[in-house]
Amino acid sequence: RGRAMGRAVGLAGLLVGLFLVPAVLVSTSLRHGAPRTEPTPEPAAWELAWDPVPEDSLWPLPQGLRTSRRQLRLVPARFQLVHGAGSSAGPDCGLLQDAFRRYYEYMFGQSRRGKRGRRPLGAQAEPELSQLQVVIESREPGCDSYPHLASSEAYHLTVAEPVAILKAVEVWGALRGLETFSQLVHENDYGSFLVNESEIDDFPRFAHRGILLDTSRHYLPLKSILTNLDAMAFNKFNVLHWHIVDDQSFPYQSIYFPELSDKGAYSYNHIYTPTDVHLVIEYARLRGIRVIPEFDTPGHTQSWGKGQKDLLTPCYNGEQPTGSFGPVNPILNTTYDFMTKFFKEISSVFPDAYIHLGGDEVNFDCWKSNPEVNEFMKKQGFGIDYAKLESYYIQKILDIVSSYNKGYMVWQEVFDNKAQLKPDTVVEVWMENNYAHELSSVTGAGFTAILAAPWYLDYISYGQDWKKYYSVEPLNFPGCEKQKKLLIGGEACLWGEFVDATNLTPRLWPRASAVGERLWSSRNVTNLQDAYKRLTNHRCRML
Amino acid sequence: RGRAMGRAVGLAGLLVGLFLVPAVLVSTSLRHGAPRTEPTPEPAAWELAWDPVPEDSLWPLPQGLRTSRRQLRLVPARFQLVHGAGSSAGPDCGLLQDAFRRYYEYMFGQSRRGKRGRRPLGAQAEPELSQLQVVIESREPGCDSYPHLASSEAYHLTVAEPVAILKAVEVWGALRGLETFSQLVHENDYGSFLVNESEIDDFPRFAHRGILLDTSRHYLPLKSILTNLDAMAFNKFNVLHWHIVDDQSFPYQSIYFPELSDKGAYSYNHIYTPTDVHLVIEYARLRGIRVIPEFDTPGHTQSWGKGQKDLLTPCYNGEQPTGSFGPVNPILNTTYDFMTKFFKEISSVFPDAYIHLGGDEVNFDCWKSNPEVNEFMKKQGFGIDYAKLESYYIQKILDIVSSYNKGYMVWQEVFDNKAQLKPDTVVEVWMENNYAHELSSVTGAGFTAILAAPWYLDYISYGQDWKKYYSVEPLNFPGCEKQKKLLIGGEACLWGEFVDATNLTPRLWPRASAVGERLWSSRNVTNLQDAYKRLTNHRCRML
Repeated sequence: RGRAMGRAVGLAGLLVGLFLVPAVLVSTSLRHGAPRTEPTPEPAAWELAWDPVPEDSLWPLPQGLRTSRRQLRLVPARFQLVHGAGSSAGPDCGLLQDAFRRYYEYMFGQSRRGKRGRRPLGAQAEPELSQLQVVIESREPGCDSYPHLASSEAYHLTVAEPVAILKAVEVWGALRGLETFSQLVHENDYGSFLVNESEIDDFPRFAHRGILLDTSRHYLPLKSILTNLDAMAFNKFNVLHWHIVDDQSFPYQSIYFPELSDKGAYSYNHIYTPTDVHLVIEYARLRGIRVIPEFDTPGHTQSWGKGQKDLLTPCYNGEQPTGSFGPVNPILNTTYDFMTKFFKEISSVFPDAYIHLGGDEVNFDCWKSNPEVNEFMKKQGFGIDYAKLESYYIQKILDIVSSYNKGYMVWQEVFDNKAQLKPDTVVEVWMENNYAHELSSVTGAGFTAILAAPWYLDYISYGQDWKKYYSVEPLNFPGCEKQKKLLIGGEACLWGEFVDATNLTPRLWPRASAVGERLWSSRNVTNLQDAYKRLTNHRCRML
Repeated sequence: RGRAMGRAVGLAGLLVGLFLVPAVLVSTSLRHGAPRTEPTPEPAAWELAWDPVPEDSLWPLPQGLRTSRRQLRLVPARFQLVHGAGSSAGPDCGLLQDAFRRYYEYMFGQSRRGKRGRRPLGAQAEPELSQLQVVIESREPGCDSYPHLASSEAYHLTVAEPVAILKAVEVWGALRGLETFSQLVHENDYGSFLVNESEIDDFPRFAHRGILLDTSRHYLPLKSILTNLDAMAFNKFNVLHWHIVDDQSFPYQSIYFPELSDKGAYSYNHIYTPTDVHLVIEYARLRGIRVIPEFDTPGHTQSWGKGQKDLLTPCYNGEQPTGSFGPVNPILNTTYDFMTKFFKEISSVFPDAYIHLGGDEVNFDCWKSNPEVNEFMKKQGFGIDYAKLESYYIQKILDIVSSYNKGYMVWQEVFDNKAQLKPDTVVEVWMENNYAHELSSVTGAGFTAILAAPWYLDYISYGQDWKKYYSVEPLNFPGCEKQKKLLIGGEACLWGEFVDATNLTPRLWPRASAVGERLWSSRNVTNLQDAYKRLTNHRCRML
């Protein structure tokens, strides 16, 4: 009756323990998966099945990795995260200071000291690692700026006696390296913190590695969003795609148009105030995460209509208005006046260079039913091609947003419907059916693409579906090298129909971790068994 | 892209509010779903879509229900839960005292007072309800006993000015009635607690309404189990089927055989001590919930083998033992000596009249490989029918457990394999394929049955699968009236392969609530739309 299909990603990690091994420096591998040549020593007392190979706990796997069996000891009372000599960042770099505090806490805050056994008599003490020195090499470290698409996340980490050195061009790479360093540090059963001598050279495979959260179908309290940003940092994600409003509710509290959330949110409490929004953006920035808000139009806008009169198209039954409303009304000047002002606000509230403008799933029925819309169609010479009307609308929105010096992301329909797009537009491919072909078309037309289609994580099923997400190869679509370069990343999407604060975290993590490694690590990191072992440990650490 | 399939069971409930209505006493319905004749007054300020009909918040729906539009007010500072005149239980009934405290907290502890609007000027004050008087009618109220299969859970609740009266034969019915009463009480936007005048006559359709938790595939911390018991009480479940050990781990700390968990648990911390077990049993008892432990043999016992030498069958490859082990070794006297002592302990630790003995999914390969087993088969005249050997083993276990005056539950294979069962044996039907036919066979042979097959809630899928669980009609199997009476209930099973403390609650609830109503409410309570509305409110209250 119970199906013994193998254990879930789960408890195994709780049994992690490490044993003292002879201190011999041996390069085991530059590429994970290479044979490990040293004999594994026997576990001492506990029947711990864990093979204490340091890369067993790394997620996502670094691009280049050289580890040794030689272990160093970190003494929490003495170990320090510091700015290294020659770094362009110093104690006035709030972002790094905050990261030092945070990672110190991750490494030493959950100590099991005193709960386990005592150190065996006569055991040798490991040499001590006293510091991690962080060196930022660029003259502009980025302490007070926002991460962006072209930010460098590369880092080089050397862990050796007596100090570890983490070098990065910008602070964003340092954040990724701090995460990796913290993953290397582990506590043994005797309460000692150990790290293997290692050298890591790492950088992301794709520049855009996103998580989509939907705060319209269900409201998500601020705490859920922040917790998710923490989890994203643990997995080296760097974009929060915030699908903030939709048909069901409008929780974004606008400064210019407060009625939108007054009338369109689930309640006066189920909103994001300007302070909330700012807090999310800053919390994300401190973790090297961009926040790209999505204000999806002209469809998916029922909630907008509650607080903004005449914004939506009135639907008709013959000659009579039905009282229902369809997509944004594309034929009124007042619509564009509103959007001009609204996106001026959005462009200023959200610092990222991109805004997601949606543009998906526009239902034409209401437009078709409306006599004034049809008259407009005739006048414009659109015939009965409502996709042209949609493009007419989108074009105007794109132009508005461009005028604020913002780039835009759109769902694939906007491309499919042949709107004129700026060359730096990012087209997000979401339709599962033949998405490789769509990637080929989008990049073939010279546009930048990101892939979401195979990573709709709100779709759940029994068992270890992370393997399905993990096994996707994003570049596996027809196209030349130049086209492949135009695929800049992907997103794991957690639509909110069945997600709220009660299940967000366990539903998204560690399943999204699979996408995280796929977007960060080298293309040839595909071994499921190896991934399973590391993911198990990684989940335990995240818990 | 976002699929607007209708909102999840979710937020709607957070918007619950009630408005003052003219005080006119009208019987609306004796059966839920009958037409409601009063006009609904217009909501005042907020656009609250909720129709303030009291039964909109009841789950599971009571058998008989008469409600009025007339509302009474409860003032927390004055309202009391008390023992009524003529009750056989009084202030020395710890179980009821604890329940009074608990339900007072549920009703008034989460007050939103002060967070919402002010009471409109000139609004009329409702008459006050000052007490809920609880009257236990049996001379043996049951305050210090354990609930059992034949316990009465019926109750009669009258809510009228100036006091509400809850009558029940035993305390178990009072617990159910307290839950119902607490579901009737709601807070309006002005911080007033209101209840509609009502009369409820209620009793369960089935006597056995269980939740199976599996603490072997993943360990569940005590807190998860207790939280689940709370949720069970909110849904009038009355059996915790505790699948406590299995192949993967043996967290039960045995008094006689401590090695079983020392060696067979995931760690020294991942165990249930005798104190833990006692705590679960008592916490359950106070909520009218039986705890039936399952110690599944002879299969599903890998973890037993670690701490009990020679208990499992050594598997062979030709002449050579492989070092692996199969099911419990049924040919050794030491096996039965062990089981005699072990089940003596279990019979004494767990007060319930039933123990679940498992007996499912026995793999014969190892027995087949073992020369001594085969010799034994020959001697016993079993030929090559290993099902006979299984029955031989089970029979002995059943006899052992019977000798301790315990009844037993078994999985359906034990019946299918024709072991001789005591007449009061409960056969649990779990195989999904044609379970109606199996119910027919089991009850046709005169045995009591419970149904689990359609309610394996660890199987997840996208969307509102609660409807599938809700739409099961347990008595829809071929058989005469007498057979139907032998189906005494069902269980929602949450196997633990992919469940641990991080996802137990949101995965099980409110999906299991669907099973709860199916097993409690009248057969004709089947309207999905009505259920959805009530379930939404119920989920909100549980949160």
